[in-house]
Amino acid sequence: MNGAESLVHTLADCGIDLCFANPGTSEMHFVAALDREPRIRGVLCLFEGVAAGAADGYARMTGKPAATLLHLGPGFANAVSHLHNARKAGSPLVNIVGDHARAHAQYVQAPLTSDILGICRPVSDWLHQSSAPQEVAGDGARAVAAALEAPGQVATLVLPADCAWEEAAGPAAPLAVPQAAPVDDRTIESCAAALKNGKRTLLLLRGRCLQQAGMEAAGRIAARTGARVAHDYFAPRVTRGAGLPAIERIPYFGEEIVERLAGLEQIILVGAPPPVTFFAYPGKPSWVTPEGCDLITLAEPQDDATDALVRLADALDARAPGRIVQLARPDMPAPGALTSAAMGAIMARLMPDDCILSDDSLTAGPGIQASLKAGPRHDVMFLTGGAIGDALPMAAGAALACPIRKVIAASGDGAAMYSLPALWTMARERLDVVSIICANRSYNILNIELGRVGAINPGPRTLSMLDLRDPVIDFVRQAEGMGVEASRAETTQDFAAQFADAMSRPGPRLIEAVL
Amino acid sequence: MNGAESLVHTLADCGIDLCFANPGTSEMHFVAALDREPRIRGVLCLFEGVAAGAADGYARMTGKPAATLLHLGPGFANAVSHLHNARKAGSPLVNIVGDHARAHAQYVQAPLTSDILGICRPVSDWLHQSSAPQEVAGDGARAVAAALEAPGQVATLVLPADCAWEEAAGPAAPLAVPQAAPVDDRTIESCAAALKNGKRTLLLLRGRCLQQAGMEAAGRIAARTGARVAHDYFAPRVTRGAGLPAIERIPYFGEEIVERLAGLEQIILVGAPPPVTFFAYPGKPSWVTPEGCDLITLAEPQDDATDALVRLADALDARAPGRIVQLARPDMPAPGALTSAAMGAIMARLMPDDCILSDDSLTAGPGIQASLKAGPRHDVMFLTGGAIGDALPMAAGAALACPIRKVIAASGDGAAMYSLPALWTMARERLDVVSIICANRSYNILNIELGRVGAINPGPRTLSMLDLRDPVIDFVRQAEGMGVEASRAETTQDFAAQFADAMSRPGPRLIEAVL
Repeated sequence: MNGAESLVHTLADCGIDLCFANPGTSEMHFVAALDREPRIRGVLCLFEGVAAGAADGYARMTGKPAATLLHLGPGFANAVSHLHNARKAGSPLVNIVGDHARAHAQYVQAPLTSDILGICRPVSDWLHQSSAPQEVAGDGARAVAAALEAPGQVATLVLPADCAWEEAAGPAAPLAVPQAAPVDDRTIESCAAALKNGKRTLLLLRGRCLQQAGMEAAGRIAARTGARVAHDYFAPRVTRGAGLPAIERIPYFGEEIVERLAGLEQIILVGAPPPVTFFAYPGKPSWVTPEGCDLITLAEPQDDATDALVRLADALDARAPGRIVQLARPDMPAPGALTSAAMGAIMARLMPDDCILSDDSLTAGPGIQASLKAGPRHDVMFLTGGAIGDALPMAAGAALACPIRKVIAASGDGAAMYSLPALWTMARERLDVVSIICANRSYNILNIELGRVGAINPGPRTLSMLDLRDPVIDFVRQAEGMGVEASRAETTQDFAAQFADAMSRPGPRLIEAVL
Repeated sequence: MNGAESLVHTLADCGIDLCFANPGTSEMHFVAALDREPRIRGVLCLFEGVAAGAADGYARMTGKPAATLLHLGPGFANAVSHLHNARKAGSPLVNIVGDHARAHAQYVQAPLTSDILGICRPVSDWLHQSSAPQEVAGDGARAVAAALEAPGQVATLVLPADCAWEEAAGPAAPLAVPQAAPVDDRTIESCAAALKNGKRTLLLLRGRCLQQAGMEAAGRIAARTGARVAHDYFAPRVTRGAGLPAIERIPYFGEEIVERLAGLEQIILVGAPPPVTFFAYPGKPSWVTPEGCDLITLAEPQDDATDALVRLADALDARAPGRIVQLARPDMPAPGALTSAAMGAIMARLMPDDCILSDDSLTAGPGIQASLKAGPRHDVMFLTGGAIGDALPMAAGAALACPIRKVIAASGDGAAMYSLPALWTMARERLDVVSIICANRSYNILNIELGRVGAINPGPRTLSMLDLRDPVIDFVRQAEGMGVEASRAETTQDFAAQFADAMSRPGPRLIEAVL
């Protein structure tokens, strides 16, 4: 058994069942080893960023890591932007990077020699380079354990090619993973006391507590105490919709956040950091907690926030289930030119129970999201780290994680161009994903930001740098070029018919929604 | 004048005339400042990797840096792979990265907060973060000077948004750039002596000496001494073809290199490092200089190798021009299924004088290149750093650098999927580029490498990870989707007709060549 085989069997023993791969020569032994490990499915991606985004989506939906198989140096670098998102999401993830053989790495003149640890470090919570074939299996077990450390980490194992191809011992045993720490009783009690002090209070949730059990506990607390419940704009995953307690989403723009938080006297942080703006703007605050508002921590990101919410609800004797969202299937919007609000209404009207939504659309997002909150129950994954273009890869990963659930991706046209080859993997794996490209034909968020950052009098050259109409990007042809059935919707009626059709049968499918 | 304006004017004063941009909110002041600086043309790219690859192509053809404008953190990360190639090429390049405002960077919870210097460092020869608006202009001048340090460097200036928007002083004056160092007389003399010692000798060239003046001097030396002249497989740029001295290209695979170098008694390194293999393979050497062969350095990469070659030729009294390549327009290949050799023959037959070729095709490359060496004079740019997918972006950059020259890109299908949005920039800028996608519908190089790395008995799952036929990628539709006219060639006749048509009128244009 060579090092690669010992690693692949170890990963399988540790519960890894999927490997998103974009291999090169230095990964060939790992690829060959996958052939001899039926418990791990290899999924080919045509760009490393797709592999990383898919692994993030898979992790958000399963709570467990997938592996990625990435090529050395520049290959890993192509994955960095979506690994950045995964880290911000607290997604567990195990990267395997096939490096040069140890004796070859001394040759700086070899084209692919790079500062590989330097490239990996900024997005790796755990980083290790194997130094002998006998150590590879143990390194793999440690990588999985590191990935599973709460709230979830990006673990990167750099595997020199000779450590993969040389003889090794057998697989290593999985390591015990420390569970998320329970919050101590005193903290629960002090938060319970705070919730009884009559102050205007917001519970701000992040992480796994935004799934059913945590949401229900938060709903009970809200019903009992009058506290509001919210998640930040870039939450990794929220389970919401009909049958679950209502939850607010903190807005995108600083002014809107300030307005939304105005009057609060205390914010209880539940796995969430204090809210700040996305960017800084001249003369505007980044710190948006109202002056005089207390910040109280119920749970840190690495704590078991769901358990803390349940215990807090119990401590408050909060039994009533809170304000449960009633299913609101919107009326069909009026015929005419398509808007993001109409798209959201049609989606909420037609989407099935228990689907998954992956959304990195920036300017279309709020319009789409408005109706969905009261649609049928679903999970939604947002853009956590600002690295646009992850909606499609994440949707692919979510579809592999949850093959019986419909997955809908909503991406901006600017964003979609970052990782469009995700469509090819959807076609190859026959994934039930409907990709909706919100085609406003501009970097529209930048047209808005241009005014907000105080850049004065943008001229025609500035405006042209935000414009995607010359030439117009045809997403239908591009999708067809990667084997995905596609259509263009320019009106409400088009979109309703195409979305209904997409819901009626398995994907993959793409709709270019012209806004 | 704000910091961004002071920087933009400084860059223009330093000779920068092009900025490949993929901006975000933190770059809006820089974009707005471009509006007020007519000497710098902003070129919008839909992905940072395209911007970096285009800047590399521009630098290789002009010898001077373009600027890139990249978004913080993950944005820069998307450019790393092609910046890696640019560094390996010795291409001068100035990256401007719009970072968070200084006061905002403390908020690790902001989605785009990252270890930005850590992400930039592995591919930046020079890296600096501006610390005050008054310093930005001077930092910009230093960045350009650093980029121009021989042989050419990647300089990265991280520009906090508030340093861009706050009031600054005026532009800074350009700095003197040290010229490439002349090689000392003793080295010239000792190399001249070595060339007279009767040993079997190879001159191995890299860098700007592979352009006309250096090639002619090397040809004179070869004619006088019998030495062979070669460049490595991954040379950044070679000026070659009819009317210039013949030059060998060192092969890709280690065994072929060993065979090619067998019997050599001395290698004279002219701006080139000693040859090594691309990857390591079990039981095979990475170091391919024959045993007992002397390595003699005429010029280091940072030296003026062209001047050294001219002086060496003069010291040898080498006046005859050497073996000059005679134009060989190949016969039209026989009709039938298309091969890479037939493609090369047709290209050599039909391509105009003085065109530019950008080639990152791996398995099709040798077949294509075989005929081109004796085609009309042209410049060819190869894949320097192994980060595939740069042929199209580099072609875009070369077309902007040399608007009156025809540019031809040859890319593998696997490689092209890494940065296909380069086509959109070609369409937007009406660039005269013909992109040829060599569609063998697999990661064919890996099918070859699989045997070479000693991975035993690849099973169906392994082989499927190297296969791009399910679904077949339709590059014609994808190109049309980005506004580029496209066609598919499945036979020699198809390719001949389509290539002839592409040569007859300005591009952009794409040919999917099915192999």
